[in-house]
Amino acid sequence: MMYTTTPDWLVSDWLNTPDPLGPQSFPGRVVVLEAFQMLCPGCVSHGLPALQRLQDSFKPEDVAVVGLHTVFEHHAAQGHRAALEAFVHEYRLDFPIGIDRQREGQRLPATMAAYQLKGTPSFVIFDREGRRRHQHFGIGSDLALGAMIGQLLAEPTPIAEPETTSCADGTCAV
Amino acid sequence: MMYTTTPDWLVSDWLNTPDPLGPQSFPGRVVVLEAFQMLCPGCVSHGLPALQRLQDSFKPEDVAVVGLHTVFEHHAAQGHRAALEAFVHEYRLDFPIGIDRQREGQRLPATMAAYQLKGTPSFVIFDREGRRRHQHFGIGSDLALGAMIGQLLAEPTPIAEPETTSCADGTCAV
Amino acid sequence: MMYTTTPDWLVSDWLNTPDPLGPQSFPGRVVVLEAFQMLCPGCVSHGLPALQRLQDSFKPEDVAVVGLHTVFEHHAAQGHRAALEAFVHEYRLDFPIGIDRQREGQRLPATMAAYQLKGTPSFVIFDREGRRRHQHFGIGSDLALGAMIGQLLAEPTPIAEPETTSCADGTCAV
Amino acid sequence: MMYTTTPDWLVSDWLNTPDPLGPQSFPGRVVVLEAFQMLCPGCVSHGLPALQRLQDSFKPEDVAVVGLHTVFEHHAAQGHRAALEAFVHEYRLDFPIGIDRQREGQRLPATMAAYQLKGTPSFVIFDREGRRRHQHFGIGSDLALGAMIGQLLAEPTPIAEPETTSCADGTCAV
Repeated sequence: MMYTTTPDWLVSDWLNTPDPLGPQSFPGRVVVLEAFQMLCPGCVSHGLPALQRLQDSFKPEDVAVVGLHTVFEHHAAQGHRAALEAFVHEYRLDFPIGIDRQREGQRLPATMAAYQLKGTPSFVIFDREGRRRHQHFGIGSDLALGAMIGQLLAEPTPIAEPETTSCADGTCAV
Repeated sequence: MMYTTTPDWLVSDWLNTPDPLGPQSFPGRVVVLEAFQMLCPGCVSHGLPALQRLQDSFKPEDVAVVGLHTVFEHHAAQGHRAALEAFVHEYRLDFPIGIDRQREGQRLPATMAAYQLKGTPSFVIFDREGRRRHQHFGIGSDLALGAMIGQLLAEPTPIAEPETTSCADGTCAV
Repeated sequence: MMYTTTPDWLVSDWLNTPDPLGPQSFPGRVVVLEAFQMLCPGCVSHGLPALQRLQDSFKPEDVAVVGLHTVFEHHAAQGHRAALEAFVHEYRLDFPIGIDRQREGQRLPATMAAYQLKGTPSFVIFDREGRRRHQHFGIGSDLALGAMIGQLLAEPTPIAEPETTSCADGTCAV
Repeated sequence: MMYTTTPDWLVSDWLNTPDPLGPQSFPGRVVVLEAFQMLCPGCVSHGLPALQRLQDSFKPEDVAVVGLHTVFEHHAAQGHRAALEAFVHEYRLDFPIGIDRQREGQRLPATMAAYQLKGTPSFVIFDREGRRRHQHFGIGSDLALGAMIGQLLAEPTPIAEPETTSCADGTCAV
């Protein structure tokens, strides 16, 4: 499937990364983002362990994993950064985790709404060019998840954009 | 083993029970109490599921299970009642759960200190007369836990004390 | 429960023991016997692992485990000693295993019939005096199995009968 | 990886298929072959369940699974067809299973030797054109297995060869 849009990640704060991240932050890599809540039993027992198995099974230059804390219930319990920090510390999560931006008067946080995610855990998979390619709600099988990633890895790596250009005399050459 | 003392449960608040509970609240029943923290991975993945298997494997008139939330770290994240309530709701826990009393200037809460528990999860087992008989820190096997309970169930049920007596003329009749 | 009879084990051959065994061979110990077939999936995935966990969880002087190969189907595949030996070798089983005696013209082997076992895996539990006390067909929980054993362990150890007496002049001295 | 050769499957007998099979029998499909032995614990507990998960996770027109019974030990116990038939019946295996051809005076059967498999379970993966592309000994992760399959599925399906050719005037046109 090819989604026509790839919304940006609308995040109010990040853990485990010095810089804010988005779908375009991982050129050449397949990215698996898991939307989770720290008090969601299926996320704790299945979703986050799957994300950790992904980290262990693929080379970091091929596949990146990202968590997105999409709090849409129990805000008093899990909606503040200290709660998530304690959780991340206890569960030894070391991948980047964004806190999905809460919206005044809205139940669903911003990224969750933009991606039309149906609940937690949800997985969104981005191709080597940062385009949204798959998303599903709930626990899938590792075989199916592996196959989706394998198919995206088989696509040609985009030619890297040069990071600097040389400009002189009013013109810029790549 | 027979402990020489059975400290009371020093609890600031209870969930899932209308009345405060203590070791003497379950006459004739073996009681398994688990000290846990909602952000302790071993409690979530092993300790609390074991407590639920106990509930499913024994008759309620034989074995009672009780949780004790012994927060000794991450107080901002798990040290308030709303956080525990959200956790209990999401994990569908329906047995009585006490909140171990925090003590000013002390790291360990009151019951945890009185029982000299070494961490979470810990299990304390009480016999049919409400006496502390076993306790251990960490995840044990179901076979060993079952055997401890079986041995206590094999002990004779204490003769129930009459709840009221009628006294008159200087004598008391049962 | 107390069974009124404890049939002998009617075994044509033994593995992992120099001597034939029976319910009376383990004085003072609780014995768990599992009736299994090497090509029974539930025995391989659940029954025999439970027997091995029993071995690991209890002291050998408290609990003994015994296997009984009760072939009642697929005789060509699993009904000869070489097949069972290969299985026992590959699965690293080191407890005594009896081969239930086949009976001419009968589907069920002899011990299986005497105990009226309904299939494999079945568990039979004997008390410290060698009496049949529990039996069940299928996979039970470790908590329930542990509790049965714990209750039997709580029963007083029988006073050992003297093995020899010296008799002379019409009197016998222990 | 691309292997330079794809040996044929040297099989003495088949179960669950009316016709003998080989790497070229599945045009357009990725094929996963598992070499196993019925008395190999790792095959029973991990390898064959993985093959069944493959069957459940992919469409039959995309991925085919095949078993290969490569007996190299315990021939008396597992080296005859009746033993394998009983095993296949009890474990409800319904995919095609070949019996690797025994070779006079050789320990390893023929296909196992031709593929230089190191033991059981081993997995060999063939691409849509029937070429050997991956093989590994032992239990891998479902994520890694899924990714290998996904990468092969992403390769273009070969244009089907016409099954008949039109010949006339002494020449045959495709």
